[in-house]
Formats: sequence, C-alpha cells, structure tokens
Amino acid sequence: MSTESNRQLRFAREPSGFVDDTTFELVEVPIDPPRAGEVRVRNLLLSIDPTMRVWLDPHATYLDEVHTGDVFRAIAIAVVEASTDPDLPPGTLVQGLTGCQAHAVVPAAQLTPLPAIPGLPLDAHFGLLGHIGTTAYCGLVEIGRVRSGETLVVSAAAGAVGSLAAQIGLILGCRVIGIAGSADKCRYLTDTLGLHGAIDYRSEDVDRALARLCPDGVDVYFDNVGGRVLEAVLEHMKDFGRIVGCGMISGYNDGKVECPDNLLYIVTKRLRFEGFVILDERHDKVAAYEHLLQWAAEGRLRYRIHRFEGLASVPTAINTLFDGSNHGKVVVQLAPEPQPARD
Amino acid sequence: MSTESNRQLRFAREPSGFVDDTTFELVEVPIDPPRAGEVRVRNLLLSIDPTMRVWLDPHATYLDEVHTGDVFRAIAIAVVEASTDPDLPPGTLVQGLTGCQAHAVVPAAQLTPLPAIPGLPLDAHFGLLGHIGTTAYCGLVEIGRVRSGETLVVSAAAGAVGSLAAQIGLILGCRVIGIAGSADKCRYLTDTLGLHGAIDYRSEDVDRALARLCPDGVDVYFDNVGGRVLEAVLEHMKDFGRIVGCGMISGYNDGKVECPDNLLYIVTKRLRFEGFVILDERHDKVAAYEHLLQWAAEGRLRYRIHRFEGLASVPTAINTLFDGSNHGKVVVQLAPEPQPARD
Repeated sequence: MSTESNRQLRFAREPSGFVDDTTFELVEVPIDPPRAGEVRVRNLLLSIDPTMRVWLDPHATYLDEVHTGDVFRAIAIAVVEASTDPDLPPGTLVQGLTGCQAHAVVPAAQLTPLPAIPGLPLDAHFGLLGHIGTTAYCGLVEIGRVRSGETLVVSAAAGAVGSLAAQIGLILGCRVIGIAGSADKCRYLTDTLGLHGAIDYRSEDVDRALARLCPDGVDVYFDNVGGRVLEAVLEHMKDFGRIVGCGMISGYNDGKVECPDNLLYIVTKRLRFEGFVILDERHDKVAAYEHLLQWAAEGRLRYRIHRFEGLASVPTAINTLFDGSNHGKVVVQLAPEPQPARD
Repeated sequence: MSTESNRQLRFAREPSGFVDDTTFELVEVPIDPPRAGEVRVRNLLLSIDPTMRVWLDPHATYLDEVHTGDVFRAIAIAVVEASTDPDLPPGTLVQGLTGCQAHAVVPAAQLTPLPAIPGLPLDAHFGLLGHIGTTAYCGLVEIGRVRSGETLVVSAAAGAVGSLAAQIGLILGCRVIGIAGSADKCRYLTDTLGLHGAIDYRSEDVDRALARLCPDGVDVYFDNVGGRVLEAVLEHMKDFGRIVGCGMISGYNDGKVECPDNLLYIVTKRLRFEGFVILDERHDKVAAYEHLLQWAAEGRLRYRIHRFEGLASVPTAINTLFDGSNHGKVVVQLAPEPQPARD
C-alpha cells in the first residue's frame, strides 16, 4: 500500500487550561520514503495519556520540550509499511513514540515489535501491557514496595494506570481503597474490580472517608493526582509509609499542582515520596510484562478502553482525562487493525 | 548532695506563633526519691531544638503529645545524683529525655551514659555528637546517600544540624552550598567552614543564586526548612536527586509549612523525598558516632554553642531558632558541669 501524503497534528499554541481548537493544527504534508535505518509506519492507535498535557508545558520535563510546529508527541501502536530494516519487515506491528500523525518515518531503533498475544486484542497493549501496565506494576512493586497485608490507596483509580495498580494491589494481597471522580466509577471499582472500598472525591470528604475505610492508616499511596487528595491521604499515612509519585494530574491543566499544607508529615511520619517515569532504563519492564501477561491470561486483570476516532478527536480525547469524563484507557483509533491473512 | 525541691517548666497553653510567657509555667515541687529501677539526675544542659516547637502542636507527631501540665520535654545532659541501678552510680554523666526541670526521676533504661572524651567539652555531646551529629550524619549518608563529587545544598546551614551536614558533605567530597539567614552566617559558612558557596535567603533570590552556584543542578538537598526555600531548590534538583526531609522549620511556628508550587518535579525529575527522625532504631547511630568522633578528633568538624542560662530562659532560647537570631547550637545551662575529683 503506497501513501503519498500524510496528516499530522502539529503543536500550534500553548493552551491555558484545557486544550482547544487553537492548540494544534491539522496539516496535510507529503510523506518521505524511509532512509537507511528508518522505517515508515502507519499509526493505528494513539495512546492518550495525562502526561501529554505536561509535554505542552514549556517548563523542563523528563522529555524534550515540544516546540511550536512539531508533530505532537504520542505513543502509538503502528504497522510497518516500508522498511530498510530486515528485522522490521512490512506488516510488523510495533509500538513507539510515533506521534499524532497518520504515518511516521522513524529510526527502526525507536520501535518495539509487538508480539501477537492469542486471546487479547491489540488494544490490550495499551490497556494492560506496554507503558500503562508497566507503570502500574513498577510503580507499585519497585517504588512502593507493597507487601501482602498492607493497605494501599490509589487515586484516579478508575483510570488506565490507577485501575491496574489497584488490581495488582489486590493480586499481591493488599487491602485496596480507590479514589475516583463519580459514583459510577466507584461502583466499578468495588463491584467489578473487587476493591475493598472506593471514595468519590467529588461528593465525599476524602479525609473522613479514609478515616472510615483505613482506620489503621495507609502503607502505600499510589498518587496519580497530587493536590488536595494527596493532602488528605497524607493525614492517614502510617509511619514509614511510601507515596508513589506517578502523576499529579490535578495540576496539569494550569501548570500548578495545588499544594498540600501538611508536607511536614514527610518528616514526622518518616515517609518516602518518590517519583518515577516508566521510560527510564532502571525499571525492570521485562519482569513487569511477564507478570502482567500471566495475570491477564488468568483473567485476573480487567481494563476498559475509551475510544475516539481520527486525529481531529485528539484534543477532545485529552480533555476527558482532565474533566474526568473518561472511562478507562483513552485511545484514538486512526486506522483499522490489519486482519491476519487467511490461507 | 541532697535536694528537697525541684523546679519544673510545665506546658500551660498552646502558643500561636512564637512561644511566650503564657506558654509555660515555672513551678516548684517536692522531688521524690528514685524507686526500684529509677535514677534521680540533676540536669546540667538542655538541648534546645526546633522540633520542640512541633511537640507543642496538638497534631500527632512522632512522639506522644505533650499535654497541659506536663513537664516540657527536652533532651538533656545530666549527672546521676541518686540511683537504684549499679550501672549508673552517682556522678555518672548521662543523656536522655529528662525534660525542662532542675532534677528528674526517670527509669534507668531511658538514660544513656556519656563517655568523657579527652579534649572535648561536655557541650560537644550536643554540638557535634549525640542527636545533632547523628542527625546530620545519618540524614546525609543513609537517607541522602551522598557520594563524592555530588552537589549538596543544605538549608539552615549555620544551624546546629545544618552546619554539621554541610561539613560532613565537604569531608565526603561534595560541592556544598549552604543557605542561611544573614550575611554574617553566610560568611561563617564560606570563610570559617569552607563551603563552596552560601546564599542569604533574606536578601538574595534563592532561585537565581542556585542557578549561579549550582549550574549543573543539585544532587542532594538536606532540607531543614521546607516552604519557599524547598520550592526554590526543587527548581534546581537534578533528575534522580534526593531530598533529605530533616525538618521544615519555616512552618513550625504557625503549624503550617508554606507549600511549594512545583511538587510535580518529584514525578518529572524522579526525585526521592524522604523524611527521617534520628530517634528511630533503623539508623546506625553507632557508625555515625564513630565517624563523628574521629573527624572531631582530627579537628575537621567545628561547632558553635549559643548558650542561655536557667529554666526561665527556655522560651527565649526556643524563639531564637525561629527568628534566626541564634548562632549555632542552642543550649540552656541549668547547673555547672561537675569538675573531676583531683587526687
């Protein structure tokens, strides 16, 4: 299949608050053939992650700044269309930072081939495995060092990473309390995922709810949101508790996370508050992947996909992460999944 | 020497802000003889520490709350006057939480005998060794895990713990920048202690000064103050940097530490922010003590004692820690050091 032109979502203007129609522009450009060491891919599925909003902040972050005119960065599942690398022949499914565009020409070394996993659809690489699953696993196990019998609290617990962190906590023998933004999400956490309790931070006093649900305190807090929820959980942390700094989504839209008034607990309760980014080499993503795959095969991990269609839906898709209207892992489908050839 | 009466400083009323004449009351009470397992001591020297202000806060902290009517808690150096314990005969010098009072009757098990160290005065147990020195050492080595060649920033660097943390950083091969509250203290840090740089947070923009003094960023921040200084240092932390949560003195007086707006750096820079309290068993205070003693004997550690006299001076002595008027380790002398008997 030959493609002469490409559609790209390019960064146009830094948003204040929610992204909107002026944040990006959709352009049509010719697409170059791959040069030596490069591969041309067709993007199938974009992963829409809260951290994308951080990438739009001009302050230094853990990846290079996205500049005006750049194709907006995104992790995607793609299929190889043309290749100069014999290890990645046309038709190979890959994952990489191939960006918000229909096609991408990228160095082969930046792509990871995706195994076909019998019984799991392609979106499982975003819902269960890949960067979402390994974030949940490595955050909980390597940073949080959770142990069986401990009390784990997870915020944004109905979200992509949060719902996996909560379920992994259950598998590892923890008492797990989730915090989410609606009664509906809370029911999903307790009734479908089997958490020991859930708190709707929009309608409940989180502090009082934690006192009721975690009367002996919290050993590990998997923090996706920061701000006032972090403040409430700090009140209930046990001595020597661990706070896994996975994200602070409450502050991404305005560039400032509301600040807990009670950080002194870090000293008086001897807490460890540690951040991590799953892209780093230090995380054992192979071990994480093996556990996740096994648990998924045993039917012990559930995920939900919240699907949008087409490049133009990217801004709307991002905003659902910040107004809380998403249910589970947000993706944007750009092209249908290729069907395996039949003999 | 027999004593029939005791003078005690008792907690009377929770202060708002600085402690004052109404915070404590000075009472004269009879003193009981020690019962089985107990020892009666005469307090010689009280250690005045920022954490004493935290003890007056009714919120849970790392030690039991001090209640109205209680003798106010303090770490002291004392001499045994009467004893039921053959291991602690009269005349033994000890250290313990014997409180703000002239004499104390306490279980022998709560006291630690103090070795006489040739060449060092008694106050070295507060200035260099004991809880002050071990806090600086264990914070830097066990929590901060500083390595030679790293850049270390210390706040309240002219204070008791801070000045030792800074000097230990120098001994361990770090580039050390201190933050303190006057030009005079900054000169002490660079000219007397030999730090690579010092920042007067009252007259300088800490953010800009750090950019100038730590152009490659900060590996370890030994935080004694929290608040806006923590916020400024967060801007300059390197990826994977460590923040040693020793104290947040900036907020002790009003019970609320001002909050950094940029906590998101904990995630994006993968920082570890970890608190500790030296009273915990987990710290290797024996190793710390051995290093400190050796460096002190080699003349590589300096300290300054800021001395007050008498129980009535305790409130004033505490307040110097919060208005920054102290120079070095604050102590209150209650009785003269006993002179060794001469043959």
